[in-house]
Amino acid sequence: MMPPALPSRLENFVRAEFEDTCRRRFFFGLAFDPYGGAAGLYDMGPPLCAMKANLLAHWRQHFVLAENMCEVDTTCLTPEEVFKASGHVTRFNDVMVRDTVTGECIRADKLLEEYCEAQLREAPAGARADADAEQRRQELLTLRNAAAGMTPAEIQAAVARHGVASPKGHPLSEPFPFNLMFATSIGPEGDRVGFLRPELAQGIILNFKRLLDSGNAQRVPFAAACIGAAFRNEIAPRAALLRVREFTLAEIEHFVNPDDKRHERFAAVRDTEFWAWSRELQAANAEPVRMTVGDAVAGGVIDNETLGYFIARTAHFLAAVGVRLVRFRQHQRNEMAHYAQDCWDAELLTSYGWVECVGIADRSAYDLTQHSAASKKDLFAREEFAEPRSERQLQRRLQKGAIGKAFGRNAGEVMAYLTAAPEADCVELGERLAAAGGAEITTASGFTATLRPEMVQFEHKTVKVTGRNYIPSVIEPSFGVGRILYALLEQSYWVRRDESAKNEKRAVFSLPPVIAPQKVAVLPLLVKPELTTAVEAIRAEMVLRGLSTRTDDSGASIGKKYARVDELGIPFCVTCDFEADGCVTLRERDSARQVRVPRAEVADVVAALSRPLQPREWRSVEAEFPAQAAAAAAA
Amino acid sequence: MMPPALPSRLENFVRAEFEDTCRRRFFFGLAFDPYGGAAGLYDMGPPLCAMKANLLAHWRQHFVLAENMCEVDTTCLTPEEVFKASGHVTRFNDVMVRDTVTGECIRADKLLEEYCEAQLREAPAGARADADAEQRRQELLTLRNAAAGMTPAEIQAAVARHGVASPKGHPLSEPFPFNLMFATSIGPEGDRVGFLRPELAQGIILNFKRLLDSGNAQRVPFAAACIGAAFRNEIAPRAALLRVREFTLAEIEHFVNPDDKRHERFAAVRDTEFWAWSRELQAANAEPVRMTVGDAVAGGVIDNETLGYFIARTAHFLAAVGVRLVRFRQHQRNEMAHYAQDCWDAELLTSYGWVECVGIADRSAYDLTQHSAASKKDLFAREEFAEPRSERQLQRRLQKGAIGKAFGRNAGEVMAYLTAAPEADCVELGERLAAAGGAEITTASGFTATLRPEMVQFEHKTVKVTGRNYIPSVIEPSFGVGRILYALLEQSYWVRRDESAKNEKRAVFSLPPVIAPQKVAVLPLLVKPELTTAVEAIRAEMVLRGLSTRTDDSGASIGKKYARVDELGIPFCVTCDFEADGCVTLRERDSARQVRVPRAEVADVVAALSRPLQPREWRSVEAEFPAQAAAAAAA
Repeated sequence: MMPPALPSRLENFVRAEFEDTCRRRFFFGLAFDPYGGAAGLYDMGPPLCAMKANLLAHWRQHFVLAENMCEVDTTCLTPEEVFKASGHVTRFNDVMVRDTVTGECIRADKLLEEYCEAQLREAPAGARADADAEQRRQELLTLRNAAAGMTPAEIQAAVARHGVASPKGHPLSEPFPFNLMFATSIGPEGDRVGFLRPELAQGIILNFKRLLDSGNAQRVPFAAACIGAAFRNEIAPRAALLRVREFTLAEIEHFVNPDDKRHERFAAVRDTEFWAWSRELQAANAEPVRMTVGDAVAGGVIDNETLGYFIARTAHFLAAVGVRLVRFRQHQRNEMAHYAQDCWDAELLTSYGWVECVGIADRSAYDLTQHSAASKKDLFAREEFAEPRSERQLQRRLQKGAIGKAFGRNAGEVMAYLTAAPEADCVELGERLAAAGGAEITTASGFTATLRPEMVQFEHKTVKVTGRNYIPSVIEPSFGVGRILYALLEQSYWVRRDESAKNEKRAVFSLPPVIAPQKVAVLPLLVKPELTTAVEAIRAEMVLRGLSTRTDDSGASIGKKYARVDELGIPFCVTCDFEADGCVTLRERDSARQVRVPRAEVADVVAALSRPLQPREWRSVEAEFPAQAAAAAAA
Repeated sequence: MMPPALPSRLENFVRAEFEDTCRRRFFFGLAFDPYGGAAGLYDMGPPLCAMKANLLAHWRQHFVLAENMCEVDTTCLTPEEVFKASGHVTRFNDVMVRDTVTGECIRADKLLEEYCEAQLREAPAGARADADAEQRRQELLTLRNAAAGMTPAEIQAAVARHGVASPKGHPLSEPFPFNLMFATSIGPEGDRVGFLRPELAQGIILNFKRLLDSGNAQRVPFAAACIGAAFRNEIAPRAALLRVREFTLAEIEHFVNPDDKRHERFAAVRDTEFWAWSRELQAANAEPVRMTVGDAVAGGVIDNETLGYFIARTAHFLAAVGVRLVRFRQHQRNEMAHYAQDCWDAELLTSYGWVECVGIADRSAYDLTQHSAASKKDLFAREEFAEPRSERQLQRRLQKGAIGKAFGRNAGEVMAYLTAAPEADCVELGERLAAAGGAEITTASGFTATLRPEMVQFEHKTVKVTGRNYIPSVIEPSFGVGRILYALLEQSYWVRRDESAKNEKRAVFSLPPVIAPQKVAVLPLLVKPELTTAVEAIRAEMVLRGLSTRTDDSGASIGKKYARVDELGIPFCVTCDFEADGCVTLRERDSARQVRVPRAEVADVVAALSRPLQPREWRSVEAEFPAQAAAAAAA
């Protein structure tokens, strides 16, 4: 059966009501609330904080534990040299403009996008448009789609051509790059620049060699994982948890031989279906299509098996935590970092549109190569050949004595030059020495040396080699934890009309047990000491099984208490009453259906329903236990 | 039976061997290793990272879940005004001196302590000492013990008196305070100062009102918890994970009525025994004594029940994760923050001495009071009286018309003055108005107003009040996660002489299953395809039960593989062999004893042994299953 097409917006979603529920029950809120909050900084309240802990626990189970990854815990504070080598100091920028009158800072790409959107809304389209108007419409569409990747000069040209002004109507400054990293000073001397990491990758990748050498990873390919905070000084934080200045990432860096990106467990995910929006489909203005990961890799839509493997495992993970609406969008070639091989974003549907929540990128060998060069440390993996191979290699015979005598204190750099010079240069130098009896070279520091044939000889020889050193490629799935949680909240939110309470609107979060903030609420039907004691006893049994619980001993009606539990996304409720049958009522959130379960069994039943892996299904509970009488249910 | 006295040092502990094991198996290491590391910044490798996740999961179970706390997730980045109000901007300092020749930055208290230690080592003691020498010895002891709490002026005096020089023998600069917070700039304008939090407390405490109002906490007393990173720009990082610049804290802020610090579950912990080192014992130079929490609270050694409750719960937690050597040291009165009521540190024994790993402080109502004043927001809790009470209250009747007419644009501040003035001032003002027909007041901004009797009247009335607003006290247990983990590593480390391998020294970490990096290693006896398949099948069964596993398919002997597993602290090993009995070998780490368990049962047995709460004991497994033949065990 053909699956339905992906929707383009969340149905029946009223953001104001959703936000009111989130604020009222403190899922999240601006940090430092009594001081009026701080832009782009959010606190998670108890429900979302518990969901986050559950999401990360499941992430560890699904990736680190099941895939035998090496998890590391690395620091946020990072010395400048690391981000110089990785390119972040020069390139981790957004383009900014200032309002020349108010001094307000504005993110240039967003300003252009909003300008285009506003113009497009006003411009006539379709039959009413003449040729000039249609041409302008196309130009605006192109500008809108290109804005995110434009250089300051291109933005300057677009601003001039369209006469774009600031939101207040004032002239704009020239566009300039604004680095998004937070800087600080490390140590008491005050002279050592550090940054807060804007991603986890560098800290993980710099542990590559240590993981390999310590036996934590036994061989390449292997994956390292890390969960932690990252920081970006966003010019314009917005959209609640979607664009913030401090956030949690869960990243994997899978180290693999660049010549062999097969994955040993690929067969297990070959048949996984996903919504694929390849760069070809995007270019043709076509919608995402449903395909299997196996077909996508075989057809060259996804670059390699390992990338495909992680796309499939990410799809499984998102489904398990309750995400319903997800598509995988491939980056355009000009959108990727220059070194990236292929990159796919898992985009989740929210009321703000499709939002990138997971990035799965083949970063090639770029980072390790850069750090190896900057730190002058060997960051290679070793591949032993099945059988020794014959290779023709250039032998460089440096005569230290002659070089030392001729160049004195510069001898060291002359020898470094001769050791490191590319093979072709050496061959050419050898020829010059043979032909002219001498040749000039210039070292890195600018020293010019006249070499003579007795100082160095080059010769090609055939040698047996048993293996080779190589810098691994890195395939990186990076999960934006706050974004996934926010999208999950929106996608699981709906409103129930409560017939027993004047059709009152009651918010429900349909979260799966694995991610729900608590697994079960244990409630007294009435606030009486005997029932409070029973509630405490059941609660203790739940805690012993590692089940998080909630109680509510307020004087509210049981219907009101159920509504409070539903709007926290808690999947099950146990209600203690005075019935003599030794049973309690067990209620399921989404169906609001209730069964009677013996008090001695209820903790085990809830534990089975809430088990992270292969949980028991509610319908099997309904099949085993009698339904609660309708009259009692409406109490 | 009297428990043995606490040891003063770890027995048979060779730090160099311990550090070698930690480095070789990558428990932790300096961050940014290829760049030579960054002082005070450490990465945790896979074993310690897994231990950290396990420790925090158990902390959540033991505190957040079992005690129904409200966990929040707050940000590291903090705007300046928060730390101005809390006093950190002016007071979160260490005193620093500089070497006037090299410019080196030195922490003054540590320099004085080391100076005293060195002098004491050289000074004659006991019978050999004359009266002068003994007096000097006492002076050095006093200085050493007082150094940590001294002001810059006191340090300056001590440096002058003793002629203390820098470690290089050079003169020292004047001592000056050095703020330990990392500063940065938030937002694109570059004018908003922010700090990285040096503790979690302020972020949690600022959520007090939101937690109370959102129904996450139903009433005071309640506790909020938070786990996250904190940052201190230590002048001299040292002692591995014990004094670092970035670290994880797990903090609880328990909000309680300052007039009633009883705890409703205190009876459950009354009999908990702990090593108490009260300030009286310290002053008398006496050793810690073993006592119950109940006796300590009853005898006034611990200030109140809630503080005692958390000391007991902390002792339970530390014991559960495997800490053996812990004492609770009470702060001296002059050592506490000026607002603190009482404070106890859980100190864990390490090779660096007793180290503060958990601080349990009664912070009184200080933080909420400060933030309420600075943010001008009501941060009260409300106490409803059981019955309304009669109270005499001062009524202030302000005649707005008359005040407005007389003082024009200053009328607002005159009214603010009259509304906020202390009761005694109002009474006195009323008397002056009655006596003289007029009286002068001066407002906060310096405006002087001459009041007349028709403008304001004061009168005492008896009114019924149904409750009162109050700012709660905060009792804070704060756990240094990295320090606890480091102390736990040291305390659980020992060396086994392997008789079957030439008495080779083999490191063992005796970690309890709840905290061990993996619960079980699944090993093939030999590297053969059939056994590898069996290993994978058992591993999958373990993963399904949420058990973390490790495999080792290298060609090493099984004895060598056991040694590798022991030095990772993994408590159980399952070894697959070719025996036809359908059994596998299950080995326990500390005893190295082995039993034969049916393959179909082994995952459940390991799950029971590793259960976080009430785990099965090894001896019951030995009682149920036959021992492995000695011959096979030595294979």
